[in-house]
Amino acid sequence: MTFNIPLTYRPLSAASLPDTLANIPALRARLGGDPKHWTVREVSDGYLNLVYLVNGPDGSLCTKQSLPHVREDKDWPLPLDRTAAEAAYWRMVGPHAEGLVPEIYHYDPELALIVMEQLSPHRVVRHGVVAGETYPGLGAKVAEFSARSTFFTSDFFQKQEFKHRGVAELKDNHVLHRIMLELVYQDPFIASPRNHWTTPHLDAFVEDFRANGRIRAAAARLGLKFLSSPQALIHNDLHAGAVMIAGDDVRIIDPEFSTFGPIGVDLGIFIGHLLLGYYAQDGHAKPGEDRSPQQQWLLDEIVAFWFAFRRRFVELWRDNAAGDAYLASGFADPVGQAVAQAEREAFVDGLFADAVGYAATAMIRSIIGYSHFAELESIAEPDRKGAAEAGALSLARQFLLEPQRFVAIADVIAEAPRHRRAPGGRFAP
Amino acid sequence: MTFNIPLTYRPLSAASLPDTLANIPALRARLGGDPKHWTVREVSDGYLNLVYLVNGPDGSLCTKQSLPHVREDKDWPLPLDRTAAEAAYWRMVGPHAEGLVPEIYHYDPELALIVMEQLSPHRVVRHGVVAGETYPGLGAKVAEFSARSTFFTSDFFQKQEFKHRGVAELKDNHVLHRIMLELVYQDPFIASPRNHWTTPHLDAFVEDFRANGRIRAAAARLGLKFLSSPQALIHNDLHAGAVMIAGDDVRIIDPEFSTFGPIGVDLGIFIGHLLLGYYAQDGHAKPGEDRSPQQQWLLDEIVAFWFAFRRRFVELWRDNAAGDAYLASGFADPVGQAVAQAEREAFVDGLFADAVGYAATAMIRSIIGYSHFAELESIAEPDRKGAAEAGALSLARQFLLEPQRFVAIADVIAEAPRHRRAPGGRFAP
Repeated sequence: MTFNIPLTYRPLSAASLPDTLANIPALRARLGGDPKHWTVREVSDGYLNLVYLVNGPDGSLCTKQSLPHVREDKDWPLPLDRTAAEAAYWRMVGPHAEGLVPEIYHYDPELALIVMEQLSPHRVVRHGVVAGETYPGLGAKVAEFSARSTFFTSDFFQKQEFKHRGVAELKDNHVLHRIMLELVYQDPFIASPRNHWTTPHLDAFVEDFRANGRIRAAAARLGLKFLSSPQALIHNDLHAGAVMIAGDDVRIIDPEFSTFGPIGVDLGIFIGHLLLGYYAQDGHAKPGEDRSPQQQWLLDEIVAFWFAFRRRFVELWRDNAAGDAYLASGFADPVGQAVAQAEREAFVDGLFADAVGYAATAMIRSIIGYSHFAELESIAEPDRKGAAEAGALSLARQFLLEPQRFVAIADVIAEAPRHRRAPGGRFAP
Repeated sequence: MTFNIPLTYRPLSAASLPDTLANIPALRARLGGDPKHWTVREVSDGYLNLVYLVNGPDGSLCTKQSLPHVREDKDWPLPLDRTAAEAAYWRMVGPHAEGLVPEIYHYDPELALIVMEQLSPHRVVRHGVVAGETYPGLGAKVAEFSARSTFFTSDFFQKQEFKHRGVAELKDNHVLHRIMLELVYQDPFIASPRNHWTTPHLDAFVEDFRANGRIRAAAARLGLKFLSSPQALIHNDLHAGAVMIAGDDVRIIDPEFSTFGPIGVDLGIFIGHLLLGYYAQDGHAKPGEDRSPQQQWLLDEIVAFWFAFRRRFVELWRDNAAGDAYLASGFADPVGQAVAQAEREAFVDGLFADAVGYAATAMIRSIIGYSHFAELESIAEPDRKGAAEAGALSLARQFLLEPQRFVAIADVIAEAPRHRRAPGGRFAP
């Protein structure tokens, strides 16, 4: 498979980047001085992009450019359309999420290049979680982002036409949409050659996920909902690697997988990856190090995230009911207001149930699917890695098998410690 | 509001039509002979289009052309994009619904013209229902169409990309999408100037629909689902005026409102309009005429429709599971097959619940909204008309207020007679 690449496209190098930026007056002015003296540092991370940090005497910026293939695998072609999708996401979500996303300075479709605010001294939350750092307040900030980004792109705020146009605008990003669909909702439950896992430790889990009818059915229902419930524009990859933090300042990045989908997907991915971090702590603890404060912090942030999301989504809806769903003029009287409030709360309760399910699929795909993540992947010792992963898989499995046990976020917090496994041998589900 | 009209667009008259058709060799050959001798008869019906039947010595056809305004109201402009949407629907659904839809001979985007098979001696089912005719077997045929048209455009058969492309293709038909949204899910539950109803007979119902919080909430939930659950490409206007019949031959027409939406919408509209026909019978009975056989026939067809739809949708899914939802390779083993069958049945049971709700909104909008339909509208005597309409509204109201009472189609059939009202005065909900 090959994809169209604009004739003028070229991957930018640290050497060629200053000239390109200097041709754009606003960027040249922002950096200031002589482009020859700008510093350029490559910080490419993740699977997909070239990322540079550029600093000049007057300011700084960050460039993100799509490559026409997976960064580490030139034989896996990827279309450049994902940059258009990211730009579209920022255009639709940015105005409603000021201060929670990077400022976007420039978008060049032919170079598949986005130039944005350099987030400094921000750190990717995932790296901090691995290092044993804690960021009190993280959950509430991400909740604010999730509530705003989804509410303001939902049918409660938007007119019907917005979503139809939005789906049309994102449709050319179908390769990334397909990757996400297959890697999360399909591969882990079949014998896909892309799957890999810590073996033999997790073999019995993997076998169970492919054989257990109730698990397969639960995962398929989540996949169907992912395909057929475009409640809002979702980020669709909201793990701890897409969150940067510096003190109180939290920013969400990397929305190139964005699509119209169930709001619970974003909530579940974020919760699921905090839970991965929770189970990973034992594997990262140095001899004699007690990671229980970090574990408690992660669980606290999950609670804070959910309560803040729930409160903010309901408030935003109450105060901004401009959409085609639950037409405001139909609920303006006192009875209508009371009914609408009950409907809002019931809707968000439904999102919680979805979030539990999507937390499960996010955790499972991160451990036995194609893409693994540093929380667990960077645990050096296989027995400890397997034990941490088995704990996460065990909770995820219960999310799928006994969703009725998780009616409140407290149920998640209460169950999480019970699934921890001690290193040693193979693990049974 | 005005819309783009191609420079070469012109409404075709009975006089100009033969020349236009004669320029298309396949159509000229189909009709045969000298175009001067072709007969052209206008049969425009409904709100939106110019329709002609054309006959020649060798064959016949039907032309349907969009007008740039509501047919009876030149001050209500309508875009011609609806013909592109209809053509797209036939392209997506036609191959899967052979024999249940008209054959499409030609589509001219600049004239907003579709040329199709002339259905003769077919009759519009609505007219027959008013006249007291019965068509045994109707329900099973429409069920076959509904099962095929929705299954083959669903995530159970299609890949993810199909729907994204389909939504993009239909998005320019937003004016018709908005009309349907507002007329069905919004207007009847607010004080819209477009609403009208038999007064004073139905005043108390109308007041209740705008004041009753539980009804408003139920209607808003259905509206939200309409906006955010694109399970399949739906016809979206599948009332008895969109069904033509001649003996065993049943054809579905007029998909210009089609959109990706909940499958239950099509099911509910069809069931709802048969129920309108059921309540209308008393109003159309001549002195001494017994319409109870017709009433029984309508209830029988509702039962047959539901059971045939349920069986066929499940069968089609079992035999054609090519889609991204419930990936076939994940359910190929005996356990998987058993689980998948249970999932299919549970999914279709969910469609029944949706159908009951969408039957309610279809009935309500047909009686107190903007567009009324001949089943009830053609009842001459206001007291009898009001009584028939009150019966339909009363059942629809129960559908919204007590959905838990309707778990099987038999529950609908058992309740329907209990809501009939005798003519006389105003009706209380």
